[in-house]
Amino acid sequence: MSNDFRQQALDYHAQPKPGKISVTITKSAETSKDLALAYSPGVAEPVREIAADPETAYRYTAKGNMVAVITNGTAILGLGNLGPLASKPVMEGKALLFKRFAGLDAIDIEVNHRTTQDFINTVANIADTFGGINLEDIKAPECFEIEQALIERCNIPVFHDDQHGTAIVTAAGMLNALEIQGKSLEQARIVCMGAGAAAIACMELLIKCGAQREHIYMLDSKGVIHTRREDLNEYKSLFANNTDKRTLDDVIEGADIFVGVSGPDLLPPESLKLMADNPIIFACSNPDPEIKPELALQARDDVIMATGRSDYPNQVNNVLCFPFIFRGALDVRANAINDEMKIAAVEAIRELAKEPVPESVLKAAGVEALSFGRDYIIPKPLDPRLCERVATAVAKAAVESGAARIEMPENYAPSSGD
Amino acid sequence: MSNDFRQQALDYHAQPKPGKISVTITKSAETSKDLALAYSPGVAEPVREIAADPETAYRYTAKGNMVAVITNGTAILGLGNLGPLASKPVMEGKALLFKRFAGLDAIDIEVNHRTTQDFINTVANIADTFGGINLEDIKAPECFEIEQALIERCNIPVFHDDQHGTAIVTAAGMLNALEIQGKSLEQARIVCMGAGAAAIACMELLIKCGAQREHIYMLDSKGVIHTRREDLNEYKSLFANNTDKRTLDDVIEGADIFVGVSGPDLLPPESLKLMADNPIIFACSNPDPEIKPELALQARDDVIMATGRSDYPNQVNNVLCFPFIFRGALDVRANAINDEMKIAAVEAIRELAKEPVPESVLKAAGVEALSFGRDYIIPKPLDPRLCERVATAVAKAAVESGAARIEMPENYAPSSGD
Repeated sequence: MSNDFRQQALDYHAQPKPGKISVTITKSAETSKDLALAYSPGVAEPVREIAADPETAYRYTAKGNMVAVITNGTAILGLGNLGPLASKPVMEGKALLFKRFAGLDAIDIEVNHRTTQDFINTVANIADTFGGINLEDIKAPECFEIEQALIERCNIPVFHDDQHGTAIVTAAGMLNALEIQGKSLEQARIVCMGAGAAAIACMELLIKCGAQREHIYMLDSKGVIHTRREDLNEYKSLFANNTDKRTLDDVIEGADIFVGVSGPDLLPPESLKLMADNPIIFACSNPDPEIKPELALQARDDVIMATGRSDYPNQVNNVLCFPFIFRGALDVRANAINDEMKIAAVEAIRELAKEPVPESVLKAAGVEALSFGRDYIIPKPLDPRLCERVATAVAKAAVESGAARIEMPENYAPSSGD
Repeated sequence: MSNDFRQQALDYHAQPKPGKISVTITKSAETSKDLALAYSPGVAEPVREIAADPETAYRYTAKGNMVAVITNGTAILGLGNLGPLASKPVMEGKALLFKRFAGLDAIDIEVNHRTTQDFINTVANIADTFGGINLEDIKAPECFEIEQALIERCNIPVFHDDQHGTAIVTAAGMLNALEIQGKSLEQARIVCMGAGAAAIACMELLIKCGAQREHIYMLDSKGVIHTRREDLNEYKSLFANNTDKRTLDDVIEGADIFVGVSGPDLLPPESLKLMADNPIIFACSNPDPEIKPELALQARDDVIMATGRSDYPNQVNNVLCFPFIFRGALDVRANAINDEMKIAAVEAIRELAKEPVPESVLKAAGVEALSFGRDYIIPKPLDPRLCERVATAVAKAAVESGAARIEMPENYAPSSGD
């Protein structure tokens, strides 16, 4: 990162006032009468209503549009475990994205805890405050236990974006890449480099979309995950194959898909050359991918690629998903974000890439043209159609799958942000 | 409450959108460049800075202007224990007041806990997120233990407003009333009806301002608190006198001050008549005071009175205090709100009542004139001078008492809200 950009980033956060979010009043609060309605004695009325029927909290308070972005700072994007306070700019940034893209009021909560159970308990205790909970930057494997326990304890959506946001956008791009390459997920042989939160969630979602578990080889820092290893946690164990293959080259030979959520330059061009015809490479390590696109295309010209970066085609960017999945879920008061809703988001994102691209999106992306193909399998983050498409698909799926607590609003038009 | 006002209060909370607060973005978030500064990759820079020096969280995040309004809903104003969710409109109302009067970003957190320790732990775990914590509507005696434990565990101000906000405004009005009646707190005999959070905090603060503990008689629902009672918690015990007096009339005879934080009509006119010359009555039960001002003045004309109501003179209203005490505390990054700061707030509020009143305040209060005297011992809530006076006094006291972590800002001009 250049010194200039570094200083710009610091100035952006510090000037003209610290941070990126604030709280504002949405009702008139000028006169004594206003204050008598907003606070004592008027406030007693909605209090009584909610005490009699908790569901009316959605009518009389900001709960239904409020998302908590909650972390313990143990896996801050690309920086690792720097603790809760240091993660605050990231969480405020996430809150900013929720508001910017989907008009959701989001507030960050950094949790300083002792045990995993202590974290779970803290979040469950404050959950009633919010309409939904976005878990963020929590390291694996604790993140799996945390999410599962909170889903069980809360009757609002709890969604660990590092897992499922990444998985949804990856699956959307992957299905389009397969379509272009003429392959099917059912038959594809998959190598997944990385065995953290995002890797495991990506593979589980691809399996739900049709991939065969036994066709997936997952690697962690010690190599291929197989059934003879005794150092696996219960989540990695789900991907342990009964195989004698041990190295990347052992498993990548003949593979159709490589998904990297690991670290820079871990896919050598020589290994890429071992893959089957028309291989698909999702090299999502950020900012430095498992293989640079120019290097991959130099190694072979039949590859189709995505990365985590905005300066290459096909960016796997969670912002394509999380604001809208929460928007749809909250708009029908879903009690969870279930598989049907996730797959609906995958399909909505996927389909959008097949449509003509508006001028404004081209301009924002700084390109002349975009059409469905090798260089455009994933929509652009600033595409204003995303909110309506994804939120609507997710809300409908919530209603159809029984997760919604209210009907689909008539003439539903999700807020697309500020 | 009239049906009309009831419906207005419900509509105010529900229309045009639910609730009273929202979250907004304070930085530009339009272009890809903006988003690269706000989130990945730019956000890594302030993260690294805060990891290296936690104090820079005040420079790069919204922490320093953010107050959490936290409750468990066990003592909702005038309504009792209706649980955390039902208390949400009150907490959002408090957040609204923080913003309206002192420009502070405040967010409500409702805590659903099992034990008192569980509540303490939950709040301590999330405290790093905020610049200060306003505890609200938590029942006695748990509120004392909770506040004390959180003060010990947090290095940010923790302030239970039902205790200290009420105590500060009461003390300010009381000192002015005493001045007008020509009495001194050191000699005053005091009857306190009520032995909850506000009552105990009021008496403790009056003692710090000069009142003699042995001159205070406190009554709970069972009558006078004395040393032979065996049903007292440790907080009430601090006010147990070695006396044979048992009833209100036993202790009110010859008393100079009556403070009521109990319930409606608990001070009969006959009892009032037993008090010493020029008695001071703070009948703060809301909405119905311990004695109605018209009834008190009918019983005797030498009384000076305050209530919790806006439609009588001398309203004891916490909003005179809490926005500004947090404003001052946060502006010098105080690690607590100590006695020096509370007493500075008492003095600032008290002194303001002695100054000429601006036209705008008269207009807002709907009166022709206000001058220091029996009917004006406490400033009006909509007095725009409060912020500057109280916040400045509190910030100075924080610096002088060693609670502040930074110097007094040059040309300090506290934000007086939106």
